[in-house]
Amino acid sequence: MAHIELYNSYPGIRGLLTYRSEIAGPMAALSQVLLHAPHPTLSAGERELIAAYVSSLNECKFCTRSHSAIVNYYLGDAELVGQVIDDPENAPVSDKVKALLNIAGKVQESGKNVLPADVERAKSEGATDLEIHDTVLIAATFCMYNRYVDGLGTWYPEDGESYTQAAEHRAKTGYTVASLNVNSN
Amino acid sequence: MAHIELYNSYPGIRGLLTYRSEIAGPMAALSQVLLHAPHPTLSAGERELIAAYVSSLNECKFCTRSHSAIVNYYLGDAELVGQVIDDPENAPVSDKVKALLNIAGKVQESGKNVLPADVERAKSEGATDLEIHDTVLIAATFCMYNRYVDGLGTWYPEDGESYTQAAEHRAKTGYTVASLNVNSN
Repeated sequence: MAHIELYNSYPGIRGLLTYRSEIAGPMAALSQVLLHAPHPTLSAGERELIAAYVSSLNECKFCTRSHSAIVNYYLGDAELVGQVIDDPENAPVSDKVKALLNIAGKVQESGKNVLPADVERAKSEGATDLEIHDTVLIAATFCMYNRYVDGLGTWYPEDGESYTQAAEHRAKTGYTVASLNVNSN
Repeated sequence: MAHIELYNSYPGIRGLLTYRSEIAGPMAALSQVLLHAPHPTLSAGERELIAAYVSSLNECKFCTRSHSAIVNYYLGDAELVGQVIDDPENAPVSDKVKALLNIAGKVQESGKNVLPADVERAKSEGATDLEIHDTVLIAATFCMYNRYVDGLGTWYPEDGESYTQAAEHRAKTGYTVASLNVNSN
C-alpha cells in the first residue's frame, strides 16, 4: 500500500502517474527519447539493460523486474540481466557495453564518481560521446524513477507473467502517455 | 571542461540540453509542473527550497547555487537556504516544511528510506498527499539532474551575479525549452 491515497490500484509508476497525470507526458517523452526512439548506435535492448542494471543497484524491484523483462523481450536471453547484475565485468556483453555499465554504476553512486578514466575507458572501447551522454542520463533518470516508485511506497506484482506481458506491450508501443497514465486512455 | 565535446560553452545543464536538444522539452515540462506551475498549497519558493536542499546533499554546485538563487529571489532571504542546508530542523521554516525536507533528505539517500513514520510526521504537521507526492518527486528529479550535470563533468560559474540574473529570469519565465536549450531560441 502506497504512502498516500492514489485512488487507483495500478502498480509502481503507473499508479503514481495516474494519480498525478500532469507528470505522465514529460516522463513518457523522456523515456521515449532515451530508451525507445531510434538511436544511431545503442540498441533499445542495450539501453534497457542500463536501466535494469541501475534499478537493481537501487534495489527497486518494480523497475528492475519491468526493465529486465524488456531486455529479455528484445534480446531473447533470460539469463543476461542476472549475469550483468551479478558481475558486469564478466557478463556476456561487449567491452564497450561493459565500459558503459561501469559509468552507469558510478552515476548510481554519484555523478561526481564518474572520473576521466571511466570516460577514457569507454572511448577506448569505441563508445561515442552520444553513447556516453545517454548512458549517464539513462542512469540518472533511473535514480529518479527508482526513488519516485519506492519513495512513495508503491506496490509491485509478484508474478513474472505480469512483467512479461507489460514488456511486450512496451516494446511494441514505446513509452506513451496512454500506457503510463491510465486516465488518459 | 565536460567529459564529452558539447560544441557550446553554456554551463551546467544548459550545455547538456543544447547538445542533446531532444531532452530539453521533456525536462523543461517536468520542472515546470513541479517547480513553477501554480500549486494549491506549496509556493514556488518552498518547492525550489526542496530542490536546492537536495542538490546540496548531492554536492552539485551548479544546481545548488542555481536553485538557492531562485529561493532567494522568491523569498527575499539570502540566509535561508544556508540555514536549511546546515540544520533543517532548526531553520526558520514551518514545521510542515521541516517534515517535507526530512522526506526529501530520505529520498536523496534512497526511496526505500522513506518510512511510514516520515510520512505520518508530515501528515500530522498538515501536509497533504499532493505535497508529499510532489516533495518525493522533486527530490527524485534532483537526484537525476544533479547526476546528469556532474556525471558529465559540466562547468559552473564562480560568480554569484550569474546565478542572481538567471534566477530572476527563471522566476519570471518559468522552465521553458527556450531558456534551457539554447538552440531553440
